[in-house]
Amino acid sequence: MSSGKYEPLDPVIHSQVRLAIMSVLISVKQADFHFLKTATETTDGNLSTHLSKLEEAKYISVKKTFRGKKPLTTCSLTERGRTAFSKYLRALEDYLPPNK
Amino acid sequence: MSSGKYEPLDPVIHSQVRLAIMSVLISVKQADFHFLKTATETTDGNLSTHLSKLEEAKYISVKKTFRGKKPLTTCSLTERGRTAFSKYLRALEDYLPPNK
Repeated sequence: MSSGKYEPLDPVIHSQVRLAIMSVLISVKQADFHFLKTATETTDGNLSTHLSKLEEAKYISVKKTFRGKKPLTTCSLTERGRTAFSKYLRALEDYLPPNK
Repeated sequence: MSSGKYEPLDPVIHSQVRLAIMSVLISVKQADFHFLKTATETTDGNLSTHLSKLEEAKYISVKKTFRGKKPLTTCSLTERGRTAFSKYLRALEDYLPPNK
């Protein structure tokens, strides 16, 4: 599915939870783990797995610091992630009926 | 992910090839196997697998007939498939940035 009507959909992004994470991060400068967990309504383990996948692809950067004694994980979209998400959204348009 | 901002994305539809199949079938009354294979740029085996999954969910109906001596597989969207696709597209909007 490369040269036809349907552009390939980046599999790193085309997963419900990762798509939700990207969607949150495109609209905010950064978001912490708790915020992303609430927004995506997933579990700690599941969210960690998906964040790792996005981090491996260098679509997000993850900073681990502390707020007082509590660990704080803050995520933000990288330039590469922003470009990949734009490309994904353009490709996705191929799949949507014209009236959407 | 049921009551939050991000509605669940029907996993039967949220797969690149099946999304392409649904996208083709929403715009035509029916399509044969060859047409779908060309449109989705996939292999016979892969297309068969995805068509079966959509048929099992009763999102498409598959008719096997003959054109001369050649087997002809014709697919069309069911009412249930049409409803599911509409619901999927509405849910998908949650994941798209507002300017899309």
